[in-house]
Formats: sequence, structure tokens, C-alpha cells
Amino acid sequence: MNSCACHARDTANAPSCLAHVPVFAQLREAEVELLHSVMRTSQYPKGETIFREGDLSDALFVVNRGIIKLTKLEDNGKEHIIRLLFPGDFFGQFALLQEKPHYASAIAADTTGVCRIHRSDFLDILRRDPDTAARFMTALSAQLEEADAWAAVLTLLEADRRLAKMLLYFRRKAAPNSREFTLPVSKKELAGLIGATPETLSRKLRQLSDDGVLTVSRRQLLLRDEAALRHLAGEA
Amino acid sequence: MNSCACHARDTANAPSCLAHVPVFAQLREAEVELLHSVMRTSQYPKGETIFREGDLSDALFVVNRGIIKLTKLEDNGKEHIIRLLFPGDFFGQFALLQEKPHYASAIAADTTGVCRIHRSDFLDILRRDPDTAARFMTALSAQLEEADAWAAVLTLLEADRRLAKMLLYFRRKAAPNSREFTLPVSKKELAGLIGATPETLSRKLRQLSDDGVLTVSRRQLLLRDEAALRHLAGEA
Repeated sequence: MNSCACHARDTANAPSCLAHVPVFAQLREAEVELLHSVMRTSQYPKGETIFREGDLSDALFVVNRGIIKLTKLEDNGKEHIIRLLFPGDFFGQFALLQEKPHYASAIAADTTGVCRIHRSDFLDILRRDPDTAARFMTALSAQLEEADAWAAVLTLLEADRRLAKMLLYFRRKAAPNSREFTLPVSKKELAGLIGATPETLSRKLRQLSDDGVLTVSRRQLLLRDEAALRHLAGEA
Repeated sequence: MNSCACHARDTANAPSCLAHVPVFAQLREAEVELLHSVMRTSQYPKGETIFREGDLSDALFVVNRGIIKLTKLEDNGKEHIIRLLFPGDFFGQFALLQEKPHYASAIAADTTGVCRIHRSDFLDILRRDPDTAARFMTALSAQLEEADAWAAVLTLLEADRRLAKMLLYFRRKAAPNSREFTLPVSKKELAGLIGATPETLSRKLRQLSDDGVLTVSRRQLLLRDEAALRHLAGEA
């Protein structure tokens, strides 16, 4: 199982996780020490499975660096991305809190660092520190808001607008201050994400390129006319 | 403002809210008494706004009965449903925990009962009772799982499958043991939800009716061949 493979690449402590995760910001010194002692980090190469839909779990996972794809197996046997996780996002809390199997798989979309906290340690921290509990709730709410924003994009009728919104979302997450960014998923996956065929996506990207809005080279994007893309997304 | 209208229909205490909300199940007697004293209920007729996107809030809302539409204003000025809330679901926690404006509007899709807990009372309960805090996190995680399941439906390529999945979802929420159920939204809203035009939706519903899968009369649905609908949804 991949859990063994992960353990092989564990490092003992993970102070860097604390730095990247807003949930654990503003902890008291004693809590920081406790967290250091119970947190383990794992590195996953691109494409590796962190856990599978249906697996039981006894840990909370926090993305330290890289990007993770949450996927579900469709009835036709295809893997389907439902959401992406970026540094600071955590996952696995549902399986952990409810002692239920994971409802989705987690796959490294890139070289990815993940911090893990064991169920009992995590619940212990929540019990001892109501402020951390409140921050955890806030972070869960923020993920819910993000999922709602994502759903709002998906129900847009026009594929052009869904694509423009999704590209702006990726850019905001990956490189908010740069005109260059890398697609966190393949073009085939991007097509799946916006509910379009790969052929439609290729045509739309070519159109954006012809119109001088952006330049695409494999997964690299150069945003040449941000105002135009925002206008297409209906944000202008 | 609608907040005045709501207050006018407040009833003092709301023991029934406690009965319907899993988050507050298994409370100790002292906590139940505390909750009774701080919870207020409001009734909203169909179509009434509970709060608007951008409003500031100092309360947690729990659906007691009826259905609530969470909507966002699109750039073209149209109101767009992002998710539905059913009895037991709560909302407004993000605005409450972060002291930020609501990111969506809440509108009664039906005659709706809502319980409200003031911010300070809610935070007080969380501080005093770590078990309630844990249950609240579990419930937030469950809402996140639901939002992810919703997104998985929205990205299905075929409108037939999105419609079939959405109808099965409504039926599971509204009347899991009955073959008859009422659409919680108008057909125009349903079209928006599955990313189809109203004309496409009408055609698909007529097709399902002609094929003997279901009978539609206004918002009333009679499921005549559940296996066929599941097959269409890809669940068979």
C-alpha cells in the first residue's frame, strides 16, 4: 500500500507545516511544541496517490507545498477531479471526525509535501485549545465557501466563461502577482473540470491565443490581456 | 430591511430546533437549557430573503423546516443558486466566525423555519463544550462533502446524467422512502442548477416522461422506474 511508501519518506518533525497553515497560527508556545512532536511530513512525487477513496484514515493531512487533486471514481471507471487543494488547505477531516472511509482520493498533482497529524493528537489539541478549534472551524468554513464558489463557476452556461473563470482561479492560487503561471492540471483534466470535451477546450484556448488574450505553451500560460480575460469571465 | 420583518415573527424559544439539529444532539442538560435561552426561531414565507450577499451577520442560522436557496448575484444581474439547505443544515458560520459579510444570499424556497443563535452565545457554547465543537466540525465537514458531491454532478459532461443525478439527490433529501416528491426549485432554477437551458430541460423531462421513467405535473414528480433513472445517472 502507498501508506508504507509514504512512511519511507517521512521526516521526523515538521516546523515548516506550522508556518504555512493559518489554522495553527497564533498558537501558544506549549501548543507549538506539542504540534512539533506529533506532526510528520511526507513527500509525494507527481502522480502518487496519498490515499484512495474508500480507505480508512486516522490522520489529518495538511498541504505544505505543491497541489493535490481530490478525485472520485466515476461509474464509467474514470477518475474525475472534484477539487484542488493548495498549500495551507487540509483534508481528511471528515474521515477522521466521523471514522468513515475517505469519500475521495488524494493524488499529488505536483511534487507535494504533506503534514500529517494523528487523529488522537489532533482531537487532543482541539480539546485543550478552544481557540485552535475555532480557527479550524473558520478554515473549514473557508473551504466550504471555496467549494461554493467552485460550484458557481461550474453552473455557468457558457464554456468560455467557465474556462476564463477557472484560469483566473488558477492564477490567483498559483501566482497572484505574476502574468505567468502553470496549469496545475493537464489540459484533459482541465476540460473535465469545466465540463467540456478536450476538443472544445483546445478550440477555446486557440481562440484566446488568436485574440491576444494569452499565450499557451504546454501547461505554461502567459496572460497578455488580463482585462480581456476578466471581461470574458464576466468579472469586468 | 428584512431583519425587522423576521423579528416580528420571532417566537421566544426553540426547543424544536434542538430536536432537528444533529450538531446539538447529545448535549448535557445544562447546555440544553442554555441553548433554549439563547435560540430564537423565525418563520419565512416562500420567496422571502433571510439575508443578502454582502450583509454583515452576528448569528448562526439553522434550518428547522423547509428549504433554503443559497444564491449569488451573477455579473449579469441574475440570481444564481449555488446550493440548497435542508432541515438540520446550518449556515452563516463563515460570516460569524470571520466577521465578514455573507458571501451568498439565503432565500426561503418554501415556508421555512429558521433558528438563530447569536455569535457570542454560539462562541460561548463552543468554548464551554469541546464535544459540541467537535460535532460542529463534523457537520461542517459533512457540508463540505455534500458540496464536493454537488460539484461532481455539475462537471458531468452529459445533461441527461446531471438531470438524473439531481433528481435522485432531491428525492433523497425530500422523500427518501417515497416515489412521489416535489421539486424544491422551479424548473427554470433547476435548468440553471444543471447548467442547461430551460428548453433543454423541458425536452429532457418530456423524454423521461415518454420513456415511462417518471411523471411530471408542475413541480410534482412521480418516479415510475427508479432503476431506469439510476441507470441514467450512472448509478446502476
